[in-house]
Amino acid sequence: MELWEQTNRAAAFGDNLFSLEDRRGRPMVIAPTHEEVITNVVKSNVQSYRDLPVILYQMQTKFRDEPRPRAGLVRVREFTMKDAYSFDTDEDALDVSYQAMAQAYRNVFRRCSVPVLMAEADSGAIGGKDSHEFLLPTHTGEDTVITCPGCGYTANAEKAAGVYPTQDIPDPLPLEAVSTPGIKTIAGLADFLGVTESQTLKAVFYHADDEVVFVTIRGDLEVNEVKLKNALHCNDLRLADDDEVAAAGLVAGSASAIGISNIRRIADPSIHNGGNFVVGANQPDTHYRNANHPRDFETDLLTDIALAQPGHLCTVCGSELQATRGVEVGHIFKLGTFFSEALGANYLDQDGQHQPIVMGCYGIGVSRVLAAAIEQNHDENGIIFPSPIAPYQVYLVGLNMSDESVAAAATKLYDQLWAAGVETLFDDREDAAAGVKFNDADLIGLPLRLVVSPRNLRQGMVEVRRRTESEAQMVAVESVVDTVRNLQLEG
Amino acid sequence: MELWEQTNRAAAFGDNLFSLEDRRGRPMVIAPTHEEVITNVVKSNVQSYRDLPVILYQMQTKFRDEPRPRAGLVRVREFTMKDAYSFDTDEDALDVSYQAMAQAYRNVFRRCSVPVLMAEADSGAIGGKDSHEFLLPTHTGEDTVITCPGCGYTANAEKAAGVYPTQDIPDPLPLEAVSTPGIKTIAGLADFLGVTESQTLKAVFYHADDEVVFVTIRGDLEVNEVKLKNALHCNDLRLADDDEVAAAGLVAGSASAIGISNIRRIADPSIHNGGNFVVGANQPDTHYRNANHPRDFETDLLTDIALAQPGHLCTVCGSELQATRGVEVGHIFKLGTFFSEALGANYLDQDGQHQPIVMGCYGIGVSRVLAAAIEQNHDENGIIFPSPIAPYQVYLVGLNMSDESVAAAATKLYDQLWAAGVETLFDDREDAAAGVKFNDADLIGLPLRLVVSPRNLRQGMVEVRRRTESEAQMVAVESVVDTVRNLQLEG
Repeated sequence: MELWEQTNRAAAFGDNLFSLEDRRGRPMVIAPTHEEVITNVVKSNVQSYRDLPVILYQMQTKFRDEPRPRAGLVRVREFTMKDAYSFDTDEDALDVSYQAMAQAYRNVFRRCSVPVLMAEADSGAIGGKDSHEFLLPTHTGEDTVITCPGCGYTANAEKAAGVYPTQDIPDPLPLEAVSTPGIKTIAGLADFLGVTESQTLKAVFYHADDEVVFVTIRGDLEVNEVKLKNALHCNDLRLADDDEVAAAGLVAGSASAIGISNIRRIADPSIHNGGNFVVGANQPDTHYRNANHPRDFETDLLTDIALAQPGHLCTVCGSELQATRGVEVGHIFKLGTFFSEALGANYLDQDGQHQPIVMGCYGIGVSRVLAAAIEQNHDENGIIFPSPIAPYQVYLVGLNMSDESVAAAATKLYDQLWAAGVETLFDDREDAAAGVKFNDADLIGLPLRLVVSPRNLRQGMVEVRRRTESEAQMVAVESVVDTVRNLQLEG
Repeated sequence: MELWEQTNRAAAFGDNLFSLEDRRGRPMVIAPTHEEVITNVVKSNVQSYRDLPVILYQMQTKFRDEPRPRAGLVRVREFTMKDAYSFDTDEDALDVSYQAMAQAYRNVFRRCSVPVLMAEADSGAIGGKDSHEFLLPTHTGEDTVITCPGCGYTANAEKAAGVYPTQDIPDPLPLEAVSTPGIKTIAGLADFLGVTESQTLKAVFYHADDEVVFVTIRGDLEVNEVKLKNALHCNDLRLADDDEVAAAGLVAGSASAIGISNIRRIADPSIHNGGNFVVGANQPDTHYRNANHPRDFETDLLTDIALAQPGHLCTVCGSELQATRGVEVGHIFKLGTFFSEALGANYLDQDGQHQPIVMGCYGIGVSRVLAAAIEQNHDENGIIFPSPIAPYQVYLVGLNMSDESVAAAATKLYDQLWAAGVETLFDDREDAAAGVKFNDADLIGLPLRLVVSPRNLRQGMVEVRRRTESEAQMVAVESVVDTVRNLQLEG
C-alpha cells in the first residue's frame, strides 16, 4: 500500500482497488497492475546507464473490483495478465523498446489467430506520451474503434481525432425565448424548431469526484468522457443522476449555461463552429434561439472534449471515418518518468548525474485472448482451437474400448504420440457411445481427431481428421505419428 | 465468504485467512485453499453415481496470512499450488482415487528430481480417514519425519506412533516436599535430585483459543501439539506467554497439577508409566517427590498427546525410530464427506437415494518444489536444473558476437533449435566477456551449454557441455541439433 500511496494511484484506482489489512493491521493492496512493484524491484537492481535497457515480464493474476463484471472471461474481477515493463535511459531508447514490444505483441496475436486492430489510445491519468490498444473487432465489444479507410488511421474512439462537419458562422441575432412544450431531446428540439442538430447546443451534467459540472457541446456531437476526465483531472467521472441535477438547480431538458454561475462550466470549441444556437432557457418547456458565446453565457474551461464519430473526417487524409466495436486484448503505454520519479528509481548517466528511468508498460489479457480466440474460431459444434493455443494437439478416440485390440492399439498410439512430443488427450471412456465421443471432440475443439475403431483396425488403419474439415483420411497405424507431425507443421 | 461460513472454516483458518470487502461491502475471502469452491462447482454438475468418479485439478495462486513467512519460496503469503480434488461414491472408490493420486504425485516428484519421503500425516481438523505428506529431507526443513529403519514406517512426527521407553511401576510412597533452589528445567531437576527425567512429570502451559490449559506429561517426553489441538478441538493453540502463566496463578518452573482446579488439566497416559514422580510444588524453588495420579492430583482429560521421538520403538516392528528434518512439498487427504455434507453436494445412488459425495484432496506446492529441486541440485557455481523443470533446455553462448560469422552461425543455430522444439536461451550480449557468460550459464543452470566461438567455428565445430560435467565435447555444426536431442533423451 505504501508504494501505491507514493504514486497516488490508491486514490486514482478508487473503488476498483481491492485492499485489506493483514493480521498485524498493515494496509495491503491486491494488485490490479504492477508498475509500482516492478519499479521498486528495478530501483534496487539498476545503478548505471550500463544496466539499461531492461525489459521484465511476468504472467500473473490481477484483481480489480470491477463495478460490472460481464461476458464470461472478458471483464472479471480476477484475471490473468501477461505484463511487461521496459526501462530505458531516455525517450529515444524508450521508442526502440516500445516499437519492439509492439511488434512482439502483434506476433503473439497473429500466432494466437486473434486478428487485432492496433489503435491509438488515450494514455490516461499517467500522462505518458503514446499509448496503443490491441482490439479484437467483435459486435459484442465494449470499445469503439475509429478507423479511416483512406489512410489506415486507427484509434480508440476515446482518443481518435476527427474533423466534425463544419458550418458557416452567421451574424449574431438577438436572443429570443421560444416555447417548446414537452421537448426534452436535441432530436426533438431540432425537429420542433426546424433546425439541424448542429444548430443547437447540448447541455450534459457530470458528477466529477465531488462536484457536479456543466458541459456544453454542439448538439450534433457527443462528449468524449475520457477527454473530459483528463481535462478535469478527476479520478471518478460519471453522468450526474436526476437528484444531483435537481439539487444543482438545473432543469433537465431545458438547461443551458446562460445565467449559470454556481457550478463549473466546461465547453467544447464546437460552440464556436456555427452560431445563433438554440439552447435551453433554464425554465421548463422553454428554449432560446440565437445564443452565442461569450455574448450570452460564460465558461470556466473551453477545451476539446468532442468524440470522433463515423462520418467525421480523418485529420490525416480527409476520408470519412468508420467505427467498429472491439474488445481490448492488449494495451501498451509509454509511461515516461511518472513511476520512476514518484518512487525514486534513478540511474547514473554517462556524466555521473542521477536521471529518472524512462519506462514503458505492455499488457496482454491472457484470459481475454482465449475468450477472443474462441469467439473468432468456432462453429455450431464447438470450439476450433488455433493450434498454438490448443490445450492439446490431438483428441484420440478409442471406439469400443472394451475390445482388447482397440484398447491396446489406442494406448500404444497414445504413448507414441506423447513420446514424439505431441500433446494428446485420450478419450478412453468405456461407457460413452461413439456419437458422444465425436460430439465432445468437436466441442472441445482440438486441432486433430484420431479414431481407433475395431473396423479400421482390422485394415490396419486409423482415422485422422482436422477439426476444420469434414472429411477424414485413413492412415496406416504405423504412419500415424508422422502424419500427425506433418499436419502440425502445415498448421 | 458464505461457503466458508457453511463449512465453518472461516473460523478454523482464523488469522491465516485474508478477507476483505468488495465495493458493495460484501465479505470476501482470498482463498488459501479451494475445497469449498470446487465442491460447490461439482455440486451443480454431478447428479448421479454415473457421473462419478471425477477428479479435477488446477494450478492456482493461494494466499495465506502466514504469521512467519520465511526461507525464500518455502513459506510465503502468496504461492502457487497444484491442487486436485477427487469425488467418489464411497470409501472404497475413494481408496482407488487416493492410491492413483499418490502414485501420480510420486511420479511427479521423481520427474522433478525431488526425492521425497511419503509420510503418514495428521488429517487435521477435517478429520478424514487418511492423510500423507510428501517431504523433501533437508536440514533446513520445518517438519520432523519419523522413519523406521526396520520396516520402512514413515510418518510426520505430528502423526507418528512410537513406543516410549517403559519402566516399572513402584509402590506409592508418601508425598514429600523438597527444596530445589534455582531449579527451572526438567534436566536440571533430574540432575539435582539424582533421578532420571522419566521419573519426573513435566508441566506445560498452552493458550487454546481463549483459555490457558495445564498439560502434564512424563518428564522425558514432549507434547505433540497437533494431538493436543485435536484433543482440545480448538482452532488456535500456542504456548502460553509469561503474563498468561502468571495471570493463571501458576509458578513457571515449579508447577504441577497438585491443587490446581481453576483451569483445565490435560494429561498424557505416560503419567501412569512409572510412579513416585518428582513434580512442581506450585511454590518457587520447591518440588514434591512421590507424586502419583490420581492420588495426588486430578485431570480433566487423559489422552495420548506424546510426541514420537528418535529412540522410541516402532509400533510395527519394534526397531528404534529415527528422525529426519524435511520440507513439505505435497499433501494428500481423504476428506470423506466433511465438505459435501456441509455444502449439500450429493449424488443419487443406484437405488435412487441421495448420498453425500466422498472426497479426497491432493496438493503440490509448485513454488516449493522449485525451491526444493534447487536445494537438491546445485553446486558452488549455481543451479543445476533437472531437465524436466528447467525453464530452457539449452544455454546458447555466442562468443564475440560482433564477429559476423559468429553472430550468423549462432543465430541460425538458435532458430534451428527452436524449430526442433528445443527450448533455448540465447546469450547474444555483445558487451559481456566470455567469463561473464560462462559464469551466468552455470549460475542459471540449464542442462546444456552450447558455445559458438570464432575459433571453434573455423573448424566447423560447436562446443557442447552438460551442466553436470566439466568436460565439453566438440560437435560439427551440422550435427548439433541431433546431438542436443540425443543428450536430452539420455536425460
